[in-house]
Amino acid sequence: MKESLLLTPGPTNVPRRVLDATALPMIHHRTKEFQAILERVFSNLRKVYDTKNPVLMFAASGTGAMEGSLTNLFSKGDTLLSFTAGKWGERWHDIAKANGLDVQHIQRPYGEAFTAAEVAEALKANPGAKGVLMTLCETSTAVMHPVKEIAQVTQKSGALLLVDAISGLACDPLRTDEWGVDVVVCGSQKGLMLPPGLAFVSLNGRAQALMARSTLPKYYFNFTDTMKAIAKNDTPFTPAISLIRGCDVALQMLLEEGMENVWKRHADVAAWVRKEIVGMGLPLYSKAPTNGLTAIVMPEGSPSKNVINHMRDAHGVVMADGQGELQGKIVRFAHMGYACTLKDAKTGMNAFVDAMAVKK
Amino acid sequence: MKESLLLTPGPTNVPRRVLDATALPMIHHRTKEFQAILERVFSNLRKVYDTKNPVLMFAASGTGAMEGSLTNLFSKGDTLLSFTAGKWGERWHDIAKANGLDVQHIQRPYGEAFTAAEVAEALKANPGAKGVLMTLCETSTAVMHPVKEIAQVTQKSGALLLVDAISGLACDPLRTDEWGVDVVVCGSQKGLMLPPGLAFVSLNGRAQALMARSTLPKYYFNFTDTMKAIAKNDTPFTPAISLIRGCDVALQMLLEEGMENVWKRHADVAAWVRKEIVGMGLPLYSKAPTNGLTAIVMPEGSPSKNVINHMRDAHGVVMADGQGELQGKIVRFAHMGYACTLKDAKTGMNAFVDAMAVKK
Repeated sequence: MKESLLLTPGPTNVPRRVLDATALPMIHHRTKEFQAILERVFSNLRKVYDTKNPVLMFAASGTGAMEGSLTNLFSKGDTLLSFTAGKWGERWHDIAKANGLDVQHIQRPYGEAFTAAEVAEALKANPGAKGVLMTLCETSTAVMHPVKEIAQVTQKSGALLLVDAISGLACDPLRTDEWGVDVVVCGSQKGLMLPPGLAFVSLNGRAQALMARSTLPKYYFNFTDTMKAIAKNDTPFTPAISLIRGCDVALQMLLEEGMENVWKRHADVAAWVRKEIVGMGLPLYSKAPTNGLTAIVMPEGSPSKNVINHMRDAHGVVMADGQGELQGKIVRFAHMGYACTLKDAKTGMNAFVDAMAVKK
Repeated sequence: MKESLLLTPGPTNVPRRVLDATALPMIHHRTKEFQAILERVFSNLRKVYDTKNPVLMFAASGTGAMEGSLTNLFSKGDTLLSFTAGKWGERWHDIAKANGLDVQHIQRPYGEAFTAAEVAEALKANPGAKGVLMTLCETSTAVMHPVKEIAQVTQKSGALLLVDAISGLACDPLRTDEWGVDVVVCGSQKGLMLPPGLAFVSLNGRAQALMARSTLPKYYFNFTDTMKAIAKNDTPFTPAISLIRGCDVALQMLLEEGMENVWKRHADVAAWVRKEIVGMGLPLYSKAPTNGLTAIVMPEGSPSKNVINHMRDAHGVVMADGQGELQGKIVRFAHMGYACTLKDAKTGMNAFVDAMAVKK
């Protein structure tokens, strides 16, 4: 069985070196050997995040760390502003609502991006708001939000900026400390080139200060306990040892390349894919494209599913359909993580061109 | 670097076949290929649990599924009876408390086990109690609780029985349906012979009925959404694909052996280890020993740490110290999962005898 080329916006192909590290013989987590791995992982996570602050790690999907960010920083009745222009913005909103927070749902049509001015306006209208919920890469629409500019607004406000960078980190530029982003959530199976199962969250000083007053219940995702443990290169609960050993290798690979180069590689491949698609006469769905994936609007009578199935069956290339209301209408061609090279993008483009010719 | 023999009560050694399955090239989770894996995993989990009811699976440590069991079945103000005779019983209590439940802490000295009569008595004293929190194998003390007899009591009461079988499942006998155990929580890194990072929970009809009235907040561990997804061989959030592929192989290995045989293997090895230890003149800490591990009381002047370090350095055998107040006082010699064979136990025993001779 030939290995598929995963041009999906997560999970992405995992380097063999990383997979091999996940399959090393099991070791116990309360040992010097594993502590040394954790120390390196926590240190390298901070470099990838571009922060001096702690980056917490959980055995969970990214959604778990999003929920933990809300339950650890806020209290019942706190007002949050959720900026939604896609499925992952809705995820923030839904988690906040499920946890009894007063969440204002500020919506834009799918495919568009919020501006810093809109965030400033919303904060002016809700001066007591405690948090702004934003995505870096809105994977459902291939939109990147201007997090740098938005952070300039939130920094001067009483509201924290919480960014879902689950599929943005290590694809789109993100300078956590320099930009002043208070909370950044990530998952393992996208730009970090790992299998799914690990979730991460960074907390700056402003975020840590809010933790002390939060009254929402939490245990598994208790950030205070987690921070205490990681300060000793430990974890409160049995960690996902095998995935963390893979993480150790993947982070070293990213840092060997250098984050500037990683971002440039994604930007270059993304620009090439967009140029080819536009050259084919097909519209791009995103009004503010991310580096991580390209959303291609399908012509009338060409449902995404047919194109995607042909690419999978004839070429071993896997791309993703639209989600929710976009199902059948867009093809999401990812160039993310380890599968973000010009060579992989060309393989994907050949499969796509062939599928469009066959399925027209 | 030679592979260590992990005679720790989790993580345990993982079979090479299982590790190799976790390191297969990444596949996407919304595919027929992965759905077929999930279908087999969910079906085989039910066989290992000995239940016809759904077994939910999460990317998390076992503690996450314990917390989910409380937040999905109960509501603010509900009274729970937490039976604690060790660190893992305390874990139940602490999670319940952190989530605002009214938890009655019924305690016994470490090393002892609760009886069904004590549970009946406590339920009589707290007739409104909604749940009984119990461990199958209390890993901190090597105690097994009489879950079968306890379930006979709870079945006739208005209280659900929630059993932490994280290190008990596939070591100590457990007939979930036949005994009438309402909720059984498990983790991947013990009897199931997997790396840590997956958590499981079974829910019978009584438990499912309570879910509808629960008002505690939850999102990542929302059991209703999870049950809907698994009915379609899906998961609500990106699953830990690589660990699940390993789980697929490990469950098949257990079922090929047969659960009766798996339990018997654990019982036989446990009996051999206890006999040897008693033959050495050393007391067993547990008054009601589990199949999964043996807790050995160290003589005065022989701190566990010295013995454990010698076994690790001279023999590559890893055992665990006591936890909390038992640190330094007991050595926990596990015979759990893939490392539960007479050969492994003999290797462990040789290392232990040598360490005791050296360190006396």
